Amino acid sequence: MKQDVENAIRYYSMNKSFMEEAYKEALLAFSKNEIPVGCVIVKDNKIIGRGHNLKETSKLVYSHAEINAIADASKNLNNWRLNDCSLYVTLEPCAMCMGAIMQSQISNVYFSVFDKAMGCCGSKLNLFEYNFQNPKINVFQGLLEEESKSLLQEFFKKLRSK
Amino acid sequence: MKQDVENAIRYYSMNKSFMEEAYKEALLAFSKNEIPVGCVIVKDNKIIGRGHNLKETSKLVYSHAEINAIADASKNLNNWRLNDCSLYVTLEPCAMCMGAIMQSQISNVYFSVFDKAMGCCGSKLNLFEYNFQNPKINVFQGLLEEESKSLLQEFFKKLRSK
Repeated sequence: MKQDVENAIRYYSMNKSFMEEAYKEALLAFSKNEIPVGCVIVKDNKIIGRGHNLKETSKLVYSHAEINAIADASKNLNNWRLNDCSLYVTLEPCAMCMGAIMQSQISNVYFSVFDKAMGCCGSKLNLFEYNFQNPKINVFQGLLEEESKSLLQEFFKKLRSK
Repeated sequence: MKQDVENAIRYYSMNKSFMEEAYKEALLAFSKNEIPVGCVIVKDNKIIGRGHNLKETSKLVYSHAEINAIADASKNLNNWRLNDCSLYVTLEPCAMCMGAIMQSQISNVYFSVFDKAMGCCGSKLNLFEYNFQNPKINVFQGLLEEESKSLLQEFFKKLRSK
């Protein structure tokens, strides 16, 4: 029992530390006047891809945190397949990103905040419930929810005050 | 009445000629041993973006014909917004591409062949029926269906024989 609790704490701490790295990416987006969303991709307990939202800077609609992290990870692995990887992102993925995540064969998705307007992990629909020929995907919500939400709120408050 | 028919023929011919350009892009993908899907984006009756599937070559999961055409059009317009644009693609868009298309604010989507396994314009689901804060989008199927289907079948036949 004590062992179980210790394992649970270790597991939670590890996942939280990866989400903290995603949050650091969100801060980078914030500093560039982009909607603050950040993402990391982890394989064998190592970060193999990082990205943040750069839609306005790059003038590319698909330059979301998840897509940029997927590009970074694919470059590092020299492969579009990201099997046995976990993705940590500070906002619920949209249809585009969830589509890319599933096609990448990523195993686990952790996200901080629900996105009522665009989210495809439960808010608008559960895209992973459709059988798109991809392996099973696990989706978890809640890590660093308050921090990620506050950062988004601060961004939109700043935006409205301009 | 005669005028209506002439207009209808002119409209059909124009759309067919744009799909023929998308088909040329699909032939390029075929020549590179990529699943043959091609795409063009049109604004004011001019092609402003072209792309074909380059997933294996680029080792990027999102290097689909539609995403590559969106990148090309956005570069040409210096804007991620593709309002009042029409997209022509030889295969029904997947969730990722349909998400990107809707977020680009593209007005019209023409596709040739239904994709039963991955398609998000009716086959697996109608992604455009969800209200993702994007403007209304019109979706049309059927232009160059036989040609685009034959090309895909030829590709998979060649792949299996290897």
